[in-house]
Amino acid sequence: MSFTHTIAQRAASIDSCVCVGLDPDLNKLPRHLPRDAAGVTEFLLHVIDATAGIACAFKPNLAFFGALGVGGLEVLAHVRRNIPSDTPVILDFKAGDIGNTAERYADMAFDVIGADAVTVNPYMGFDAVRPFLRPGRCAFVLCLTSNKSSADLQHLPVDGRPLYTVTAEIVNRWSSHGECGLVVGATHPDELEEIRKTSPTLPFLIPGVGTQGGDAEAVVRRGSFPGGGGILINASRGILYASDGEDFADAAMKAAEDLRAATSGLPQGV
Amino acid sequence: MSFTHTIAQRAASIDSCVCVGLDPDLNKLPRHLPRDAAGVTEFLLHVIDATAGIACAFKPNLAFFGALGVGGLEVLAHVRRNIPSDTPVILDFKAGDIGNTAERYADMAFDVIGADAVTVNPYMGFDAVRPFLRPGRCAFVLCLTSNKSSADLQHLPVDGRPLYTVTAEIVNRWSSHGECGLVVGATHPDELEEIRKTSPTLPFLIPGVGTQGGDAEAVVRRGSFPGGGGILINASRGILYASDGEDFADAAMKAAEDLRAATSGLPQGV
Repeated sequence: MSFTHTIAQRAASIDSCVCVGLDPDLNKLPRHLPRDAAGVTEFLLHVIDATAGIACAFKPNLAFFGALGVGGLEVLAHVRRNIPSDTPVILDFKAGDIGNTAERYADMAFDVIGADAVTVNPYMGFDAVRPFLRPGRCAFVLCLTSNKSSADLQHLPVDGRPLYTVTAEIVNRWSSHGECGLVVGATHPDELEEIRKTSPTLPFLIPGVGTQGGDAEAVVRRGSFPGGGGILINASRGILYASDGEDFADAAMKAAEDLRAATSGLPQGV
Repeated sequence: MSFTHTIAQRAASIDSCVCVGLDPDLNKLPRHLPRDAAGVTEFLLHVIDATAGIACAFKPNLAFFGALGVGGLEVLAHVRRNIPSDTPVILDFKAGDIGNTAERYADMAFDVIGADAVTVNPYMGFDAVRPFLRPGRCAFVLCLTSNKSSADLQHLPVDGRPLYTVTAEIVNRWSSHGECGLVVGATHPDELEEIRKTSPTLPFLIPGVGTQGGDAEAVVRRGSFPGGGGILINASRGILYASDGEDFADAAMKAAEDLRAATSGLPQGV
C-alpha cells in the first residue's frame, strides 16, 4: 500500500488531516517537568497519548532531539516506539546528501528510528532523494517552505517561472511509483493552489499554520487533491506548547482538536 | 579569529589543505574489526592518529553515525574529543530548516558535538543559515555539489545563468562578517574557477577528489584565493578505506600524504 493510501485511510477513519509535530524544546517544556531527556520523554508521551485520536500522523524533528545531547536519538527512538502502529511517523530532517551518504540517512530514518516517511531537500538532485524511495514509504521534498526567507532561492526566476514550480515538476518525475510528496507552506495559499494543479497526485505536507500564521481552512480548500484528501496539515508549537502548566496534555488535545475542527466537513478521504 | 584565518594558519603550518572525511561505513571497516560502535570508534581513532599531522581539518558526516544506531551521536562526540584541538572539525550534515529549528541544529553541532564549522543547504534561504553564523565558526553552504545529479537543480537557468552562480552571489551577501564558505565539488573544475572569481574571500570546502574522480592539483590551481589558500580538499573513502587489512591506518596515512603531496608546493597560505 502506498504512503498516500495509508494516510488517506487514516484521514478518512478519524476525519483528520492534522499532523502533530514533535519539536521538544527544553526552554518551552511545562514548568513542572525537568529540563532534560527524561522531562522531554514524559512530555512527549503525554502529548502523544492525548492527541493520538486526532493525529493523522506525527512528525518528530531531528534537530530538537539532537540538541538534547548525545542521548537524543535514543529519546527519539523511544518516543517513536510509543506512537500507535496505525499512525504514520514522518521524520523531519530535510536530508540532502550524495547517494552513498543518503543511503545511511535512510538506514537511520527507517531502520534505527522506525520512521514511515522523511523530509528531503531537493538542492542536490535525484541522487540525494532516490535512497529514500522505498515501497510504502514517502519522501516529502521541500518545494515552497513556510519561512520568510523561502523567497531567497525558491522564488528565483527559472525561465520566467519561480524555482519552486520547477522543483514541483521535477519531483513529479522522480515519483514514478508514488513514493514522493511535497512540502508546501501554509503561508502561501495562492501558490499552494497553483502547485496542486500541476501535482494532482502527490501528497502535501503543509507546515505553517498556527504560530506561523497560515489559515487551515484555506489550506484544505486550496491544497487538497481534486477529489479531496492528499494533505497533512502540520502544527508543532501551537499544539505542544498550548499550555506550560500541568494541563499541557489537555491543552495540546484541545489545540489539535481545534485544528481538526477547522478542517472538518471538508473532503479528507480518497 | 575568523575560521578562514584558522584554516589558513593550519594549512600554512603543515603545508596541507587536506580535509579527512570521517564516514564510518560498517560494511567497509577493516576485516578484523567488529561491525559495531566499538569497531567504528577504534577504526576512526587510529585513522585520526595516523593522519593528524596531514589533516588541515576533519569532517565527520552525521549520516554515518546516525546509521550506527541510537548511540551514534555518542560515538561521534567521543571521536570528536579525540581530534587534536589545533585541527578544526567540520560537521557535515547539510542542515536546512527554519530559524527556530536551525537554532537547535546549531546547538547540536557546536555544543553537543563540539564542531567548529558545519555544512548548510541554501534552499530555505537565510533564515536557515543565520543561526550557524557565530564568530570564529563557519557555515559552508552548498553551491555546486560533486554528485552527478547536482545538475537537476543547480544548473537551472536563472535569468540565463545557472542557479549555483546565483547561490554563490547570495552567500557572499550572507557572509557579512566572513562566517560563510561554499561547498564546490572537485568534479567541476571550470565552474570552480568561475565561482572563485565571484567569491574571492569565501573559503571553499571541496569534496569529490579520489573516489569521485576530481583532480586535486587542478582544484588548488583553480579554486584557491587569488593569493593562495582558502580551500579545503576533502577525501573520505579514498583515505578511510585505502586498505581493509590490519595496515588500514598506515594505508590511510599514505593516501592522505599522497593527496597532500599532489597539492604541495602550490600556494596554501593567506
